[in-house]
Amino acid sequence: MTAEPFTRPARDARQVLADAAAVTGPAVREAVTRLPHRIRHPVGMHFGWWDTDGTELSAVTGTGKSVRPALTLGACAAVGGSRSAGVAAAVAVELVHNASLLHDDIIDGDLTRRGRPTLWARMGVPAAVLAGDALFFLAVHVLATAQPPMDTSAGVAVLTASVQELIEGEYTDTLLEGEGGTGASLKEVQAMAAGKTGALMAAACALGALAGGGDEPRVAHLRAFGAHLGAAFQLVDDLLSIWGDPQRTGKPAGSDLAARKRSLPIAAALGADDPAAQQLRALYACPGPLSSAEQELTARLVEQAGGRAWARHECERHTRQALERLHGARPEPGAGAELTALARLLTTRDH
Amino acid sequence: MTAEPFTRPARDARQVLADAAAVTGPAVREAVTRLPHRIRHPVGMHFGWWDTDGTELSAVTGTGKSVRPALTLGACAAVGGSRSAGVAAAVAVELVHNASLLHDDIIDGDLTRRGRPTLWARMGVPAAVLAGDALFFLAVHVLATAQPPMDTSAGVAVLTASVQELIEGEYTDTLLEGEGGTGASLKEVQAMAAGKTGALMAAACALGALAGGGDEPRVAHLRAFGAHLGAAFQLVDDLLSIWGDPQRTGKPAGSDLAARKRSLPIAAALGADDPAAQQLRALYACPGPLSSAEQELTARLVEQAGGRAWARHECERHTRQALERLHGARPEPGAGAELTALARLLTTRDH
Repeated sequence: MTAEPFTRPARDARQVLADAAAVTGPAVREAVTRLPHRIRHPVGMHFGWWDTDGTELSAVTGTGKSVRPALTLGACAAVGGSRSAGVAAAVAVELVHNASLLHDDIIDGDLTRRGRPTLWARMGVPAAVLAGDALFFLAVHVLATAQPPMDTSAGVAVLTASVQELIEGEYTDTLLEGEGGTGASLKEVQAMAAGKTGALMAAACALGALAGGGDEPRVAHLRAFGAHLGAAFQLVDDLLSIWGDPQRTGKPAGSDLAARKRSLPIAAALGADDPAAQQLRALYACPGPLSSAEQELTARLVEQAGGRAWARHECERHTRQALERLHGARPEPGAGAELTALARLLTTRDH
Repeated sequence: MTAEPFTRPARDARQVLADAAAVTGPAVREAVTRLPHRIRHPVGMHFGWWDTDGTELSAVTGTGKSVRPALTLGACAAVGGSRSAGVAAAVAVELVHNASLLHDDIIDGDLTRRGRPTLWARMGVPAAVLAGDALFFLAVHVLATAQPPMDTSAGVAVLTASVQELIEGEYTDTLLEGEGGTGASLKEVQAMAAGKTGALMAAACALGALAGGGDEPRVAHLRAFGAHLGAAFQLVDDLLSIWGDPQRTGKPAGSDLAARKRSLPIAAALGADDPAAQQLRALYACPGPLSSAEQELTARLVEQAGGRAWARHECERHTRQALERLHGARPEPGAGAELTALARLLTTRDH
């Protein structure tokens, strides 16, 4: 079965993302004003609203792509919810996403995010730990006080379960990093990606559907749509970070290779029974960073061992399954068309 | 008005604490089994259940004093709730407490807790950040799925608000540390202590009362009981860390002084208009750690500037107000007597 768009969407996918950002951005900011005043400062710095000394920044840049809020608002509309009904859920998802970024940047030691220094790099680990904690609980608060038809108990249950999957994915990632390049099986890397990327995208859709008053089967279908979309999205990301155009991805090609990350195409190639895979395993087992020439060789070996083809195939499979589950939710036609367009945009970036 | 015990309590306060630990401990452990399996490992290490390699430790030691669970179970009984009704709320409070300890130990760089190495010192910052996150969300989950008569929406609202106060207190603490010894006013230090200690003890009591089906005025009274008790408890702690017997407190006398902490008696003395206070401010303004002789001088100056007397007086005032609010809640006599005994134990340790 091939699930095709319902109708020509009223807005194209980029417009859907921009509109989601325009609706969710101010609502996120309003939610943050409910935090006690001191912790608001590092939180606002993370969002790029103000400077170290509290100066309001005139142009807010680097707010992220609003993928998750767009999914939430789309899922809400898909079950017939009003535009305003999904906003609280979209805000909650965006807050959780940002909380996890704050903690993730500490964990990975990342120095920049969205073109700005990360919060821990600028204000220290304590501020970033606590700002993340504050955003996690603000998300719970926003969701728990959402208006009907949202079933807030069901919403909090979806959120807490998804965040536990997200945490498990992040923790698994730290364990796999520790084990060295060849230690992780493809299955483990897939489970990690499902937690790190899939769980919150699934929650974004499920919470949108709950906010719109969707019944249990529609919520379950939309949740699965988000999970498959998350899996496909992660595969695209992994493919781009090896073979993408650095001008378009904004990060150097091969950075995953240089760091010997166990991204999905690499894990698939490492697990293959093939001379290229054997050579790849030997390369990954050597200590120290890979030289530029070794990175090029690695990329070729991943391709020869079938990692690239596998990842593309898996990406298509998850995209197809996502669209099937979207159809299964019997979405309102306009919203269904927009979610389909969004799914296509997120999964067919140049790879 | 002096609030006196209602009757002779059936159990003395130490027995109340031991019973709370006996009831809550296994329930906390049961709750942790609901976490995904990998993150359970660092969480269990934090609780002292198993070793780095996963070996079950035969004797679980250093589980904490169970002050907060005892308050929750006591508040539940005080409004006529059954013994089992308060357990989920007690578990939620204990989980939040432990999550905040995990993050606090990272923030403060503390190497030991309850006689064991802290989790971040043993397993690294990433494991401790994520284990704390997992416990925070487990607390929300446990509370959100508590059985009637608990009003779970009200419970989640109390929990999220209290955790925000707790985070604000912890963040304020890091800011005051950064400002140097003389920068913080007594008012700021009081607000910080109310957040760091008072918020969760207030939540423990409010959640117990909600779990027992208490009406809004009783919940509010018991919440205030917990807040005042927390304030008194913190004052005792601060007094003991300057003048306590190291054999009984388990930490070296003067450690707050050596680190130039802004504990409550010290903040009160620093703000006094008095020659001793002036000398104290000069001492606190010097860089570098205080020698043992300087610590003794500092302790004398804090006393001369009135910091010790002020703290004792404030402790008595908060204890009195706590007991008045307990009376205001019209507690069941047996539970009221036990909560009174608990309040006395926590606020009249030797100082």
